[in-house]
Order: sequence, then structure tokens, then C-alpha cells
Amino acid sequence: MDTKLCTSNGSCSGPVSVNHLEMASSGAGQSLLTTVDPPHQTKKANVPTKRRGFRRCKTAPLVVPDMNGNNEKLPCPESVNFGMLHSHLRWVPVYLTVYLVLGTICFSMVEEQIKGKKTNTFLDSLYFCVVTMTTVGYGDLVPGSNLSKLLACGFVLSGTTLGGLIVSRALLMNQNVGPSDILKEIETNKVRRKLFVVSILLSVLFLIGHIVLIFVEEMSFVDAFYCVCTTITTLGYGDQSFTSKGGRFFAIFWILTSTGCLGQFFIYIAQLSAQKRQRALVEWVLTRKTSRLDLEAADMDDDGVVNAAEFVIYKLKEMEKINQEDINQVMKEFEELDVDQSGTLSVSDINLAQSSSTKM
Amino acid sequence: MDTKLCTSNGSCSGPVSVNHLEMASSGAGQSLLTTVDPPHQTKKANVPTKRRGFRRCKTAPLVVPDMNGNNEKLPCPESVNFGMLHSHLRWVPVYLTVYLVLGTICFSMVEEQIKGKKTNTFLDSLYFCVVTMTTVGYGDLVPGSNLSKLLACGFVLSGTTLGGLIVSRALLMNQNVGPSDILKEIETNKVRRKLFVVSILLSVLFLIGHIVLIFVEEMSFVDAFYCVCTTITTLGYGDQSFTSKGGRFFAIFWILTSTGCLGQFFIYIAQLSAQKRQRALVEWVLTRKTSRLDLEAADMDDDGVVNAAEFVIYKLKEMEKINQEDINQVMKEFEELDVDQSGTLSVSDINLAQSSSTKM
Repeated sequence: MDTKLCTSNGSCSGPVSVNHLEMASSGAGQSLLTTVDPPHQTKKANVPTKRRGFRRCKTAPLVVPDMNGNNEKLPCPESVNFGMLHSHLRWVPVYLTVYLVLGTICFSMVEEQIKGKKTNTFLDSLYFCVVTMTTVGYGDLVPGSNLSKLLACGFVLSGTTLGGLIVSRALLMNQNVGPSDILKEIETNKVRRKLFVVSILLSVLFLIGHIVLIFVEEMSFVDAFYCVCTTITTLGYGDQSFTSKGGRFFAIFWILTSTGCLGQFFIYIAQLSAQKRQRALVEWVLTRKTSRLDLEAADMDDDGVVNAAEFVIYKLKEMEKINQEDINQVMKEFEELDVDQSGTLSVSDINLAQSSSTKM
Repeated sequence: MDTKLCTSNGSCSGPVSVNHLEMASSGAGQSLLTTVDPPHQTKKANVPTKRRGFRRCKTAPLVVPDMNGNNEKLPCPESVNFGMLHSHLRWVPVYLTVYLVLGTICFSMVEEQIKGKKTNTFLDSLYFCVVTMTTVGYGDLVPGSNLSKLLACGFVLSGTTLGGLIVSRALLMNQNVGPSDILKEIETNKVRRKLFVVSILLSVLFLIGHIVLIFVEEMSFVDAFYCVCTTITTLGYGDQSFTSKGGRFFAIFWILTSTGCLGQFFIYIAQLSAQKRQRALVEWVLTRKTSRLDLEAADMDDDGVVNAAEFVIYKLKEMEKINQEDINQVMKEFEELDVDQSGTLSVSDINLAQSSSTKM
């Protein structure tokens, strides 16, 4: 019997002779003697060898031709395509630009209704938009009429909704990873490296803001530090803010990047902590001793032995990657498909299931 | 042979007589004749029927006695215990109280260094703490000395860090659910109901804030609306804020609950959207036609038929619940345990694995 021998990284090393000798295969104490030749001994075919090859490189087929040769596998619906989600996030800079352009146009039109120190209509409107959208809200420029107040309300409500959705979606999207992805990410220190880069960027932005406030806005050392802190955290008391043309121009870019950076910083911190937790669980599951009671619990079909798929399900359940409800759900479909109720699916089951569904 | 019969919701209906008659159990097309009597027919034992019973209620045993009778299953490490995470979140009100009490004491001590309209030392300090911690930052009370400015910096930096970690942890924690949990949650409209409750609460808080600002702070209708919007979103320009004793006392509770509510509102919106996406994927996987190519791809051990566990793994992979890397990781352990390399684990494998590890 020829099967493929696949290494643990998923690559297959060609056909290997496998011979199964089943002896006394009944009850719990069942013992199976099988032999497998290592790949370099493939010449010695028909010599009983021990290893049984598992096909690990298989994934769901892209298209499945049915009995008439038609491709019957439906495409995955767009609403569930995670690639779509990624591309949604890729649109964030576009949303942001449209949002700020619309806001700037609106506030430029009601500029005379805005109270506070003015420098340039366009610059002040854009600065007001950024300070409002990021919820810094210094209060150095405030709407002075009912119309401009309502406009500011609409602008900040829609802005925080957009921001809240983007941040939470980014957080949830990054959670769509398996325990192995997490191990890999930890191994390559991917998240830790990202966190390091964001921390450096945040420090640089902090420093640049501090320097600009001292030299352009002519603040004292402590006042500049205080203004940076109250801005990055979006606190924005407003007793210290950007009042010059140059300062406001700088503020537009600096506030957007530094508040965004701090948000990203928290996202990475949370991911790192979640990954550490999940990594500890995966390691514990994979390193603890397997006992006879484990075997009994893992034996789904009660045949006295645990096959590879049963073992995988048992371990993934222990890793809290899947749960019994997930399995029950799929088992319902399995039992419907298993027309001859043999406990296994074969081509005849599929043909029977299809012909019976055609008749109905 | 007696086993438990379990329903798809995981409950077991007591011992049921099961009879396995294995016939021609080699190669492809393997057929197993087993019998499971439904609970009400337990009297008619030994009458061969066709359905094979799958034990669905099994979970990992709590303790596993080894060959010497010692309990060898290690307890799950605390760092990976998701119950711990829940209890961490349960401590949030305690953290919040300690944080606000410490902040109020600090700012009470430097109260004469804080500029703005004062009402009562304790009340103003607590109000200043809440306005700072939530990053509303009206600016009606601002630190007027270097010491108080640095204190405010430390307070807002630690507060936003704490808040950011709590929110992101709450978001990530709620993602630790399987596709079936998600289906159940959707079916029972759990998240939708939570979202509905939070929306109602948010509307009530909005209305109460509006009314208090009109009657206690004597604002106009539009100004009160504007102040509510700028506060809930933590914008806080500060041109409209709480200036009276009663207003500030109300503000302490109102700002904390309304900003918290808005955050929770966004968390539920994000969860609902993630669940809808995952639900669509699960439904698509469970309803699409299974073909012969699917069977071939699902057959992990290449024996020509797909057993229940193989089918479950194939479908969960398609649901993006698990991936090939997860499976490979567990398969490494399986191959180490499968000492006789039979492709299945039996008690003799476990004994061999344990004796060989003892020798080493």
C-alpha cells in the first residue's frame, strides 16, 4: 500500500511503502503492529515497515467538479471574506481625508461664527476639525452660534463613531489567528517588534511636539511637556494650545499621528498580553503527559483506539480553540451525510445523499 | 457494552446498551455495524440496529491518576485561565475607586494651585479628577503651577493607560468564543439585546444630562445639547461646562457612566459585526454540498473513508476556526506518542512512551 510521507512542515517526500499488520484489534487494550520505511529506504519495497503517512498538505479544494463535470463549490460569500476586512482598513486614510475635507469646508463657511484667536480661515478650520475629531477639544477655538454648535456636535459624534469602529475592528480582526500563528508571532517577536517601533515613534513624536511648543509657541519646558501630555491623551484642557500659524499647521499633522500612535500602542499591548496567555495554554496542552484517561476521553467513536483526527480534536479542545458545540454542529451534518450509518463517509454515502435529496 | 448516549446539546441520557459488530474492517469501504438503543428501548438489547453512537459529552478529565495511582494532570497555569481574566475585569470598579480617591487626595492638597471657578475643595478635586481621567478636559479648572501640571500629566497618562488596557482586554476576551457560541448568541440575540440595553441607557443618560444642564446650569436648549455631545465624546471644549456645586456633583457620576456607556456601545457594535461575518461563514460551510473531492481532502489517514473526527477537522478548517499549522503542531505530539507507529494511539503506546521517557 503506497501513501505519501509528509514532514511536519507540510511537505511530502514521495511514495513510501507502508504495511499494516493488525493483530488482536478488539477492545481497549488493542495493539496494532505496523511498519513504515524511512524515505531513504524506499528501494526495499514490500519489507514490512512501521510508519503510517498522514497527508498534511491537504486543504479544501478550490473547485469541486460534480458528477456532470460542473464546478459545484460555491464561492465564499463576500461578507465572510477576511481579506475584505483588511481592505476595509486599507480605506481608513481615504475616509479620514474625505471626513477632514468635508469638515474643513463646512467650518470655513461658518468661520465668522467661531470664537477664539484666528490666524487663517482654511488653516483654522482644518485645525478645529482635527482638534474636534480626535476629541482633544482644547477650546481655544469654539463654535459661537447655534448652527456652528450643532455642526460641531454632528462632526464629533460621527468622528468618534468612525474612530471607535476602526479601532475595535482592527483589534477584533487581529484576533483571527490560531494558536500556531500566535506561537509563530511570538517566536518571531512580530508583535513585540511592532510594539517597539510604535514606542520609538511615540517617543519621537513626544519629543518633536515638546521642541516645537518650546521654540514655535514659546512655552516653558514644563508647560510644553504638559501641553504634549494633555494633547496626546486627547485631554485638551486648552489653557496651553497652538496659537501661531506655524504651530497650528504643525498641530494638524502632529495631533493626528500622535493620538493614532497612542491608540496603536494600546492595541499592541493588549495583543501581546492575549498572545502570552494563549501561548501558555498551547504549551501546557502540548507538553503535559497523555494518560490512559486522556485516550479514553479522546476516543470519539469508542473503537478502543485514538486515531490522528480524534487526537487533534481532543487537543484543540483542550487549547480552547474549539468546543463541544462546534463539534456537535458539524456532527449533525456528518450524520445526515452518513446515509448507510456506518460511522464513516464514503463515495457511496455521498451518491446516496445526493440521489435522495434529488428525489425529495 | 454500556456507554452514555448524548444529545447534540451535550446532555447525556444515562447508560444505553451499545453493541459493536465490526465486519470487514480493513481498507476502503470499511463498514462498522454497531447498535445504539434509544433510551426508551433499552429493554431490547442485542437487537442489531445500524446507527453508531458518538460520545459527545466527553471533555478532558479533571485529574488523571498515573500507573502508581498519583494524579498526574497538572493544573492549568493561572496565566492561561480565562476565568482569571474575567475576575481581572471584575476588579475594574475597585481600581477606579482607588484611582479616584488617590487623585482626589492629591489634587485637594494642591487645590490653591488650581485655577478656575471653585465651589468646594473636595467636590472640585473629584470633579477635576473625573474630567481629567475620562479625557473630557473642559479646562474650566486647570493646574496653575508646575507641580500641579506634572501631577495632572501623571494622572492622565496612567488613567488613559488603565482605560485603554481595560477596553482592549474586554474586547479581546469576548472574542474567545467558538462559531457555535456565536450562532447561539445570534440566535438568542444576546449581543443584540445587550446593544439595545446600552443604547437605551445611553439615550436616558443623554436626556438626563440635557435636562440637568438646562435646569441646574441654566443653559439654553442648544447649549445643553452641545455640552452633552462634547462631554460624552470626551471632546470637552470647556466653553460650556458644570459650574455650580449641584452640577459638578451630578457631573462626577454622569460623566463616568455616559463615557463608559459610549465605549461599551462601540464594543457591542464591533462584536455584532464580527459575529455576523463569522455566522455567514459557518452557515456557508455547513450548508454547501459535500462532494467526492471534499471526502478525498478530508481523509487524513488515506484509508479511503472519512471518519467522524476527520470530517469535523475538515469542516472546522473550512470555517477558519482552526488551520493546518494547528493540526501539524498536535500531530507532532501524536507521532511521538505513537511509539508502535500504527497510526492510532492505544494504551500500549502510552505505556511504551512513558517507559522510554523514564529510561532517558
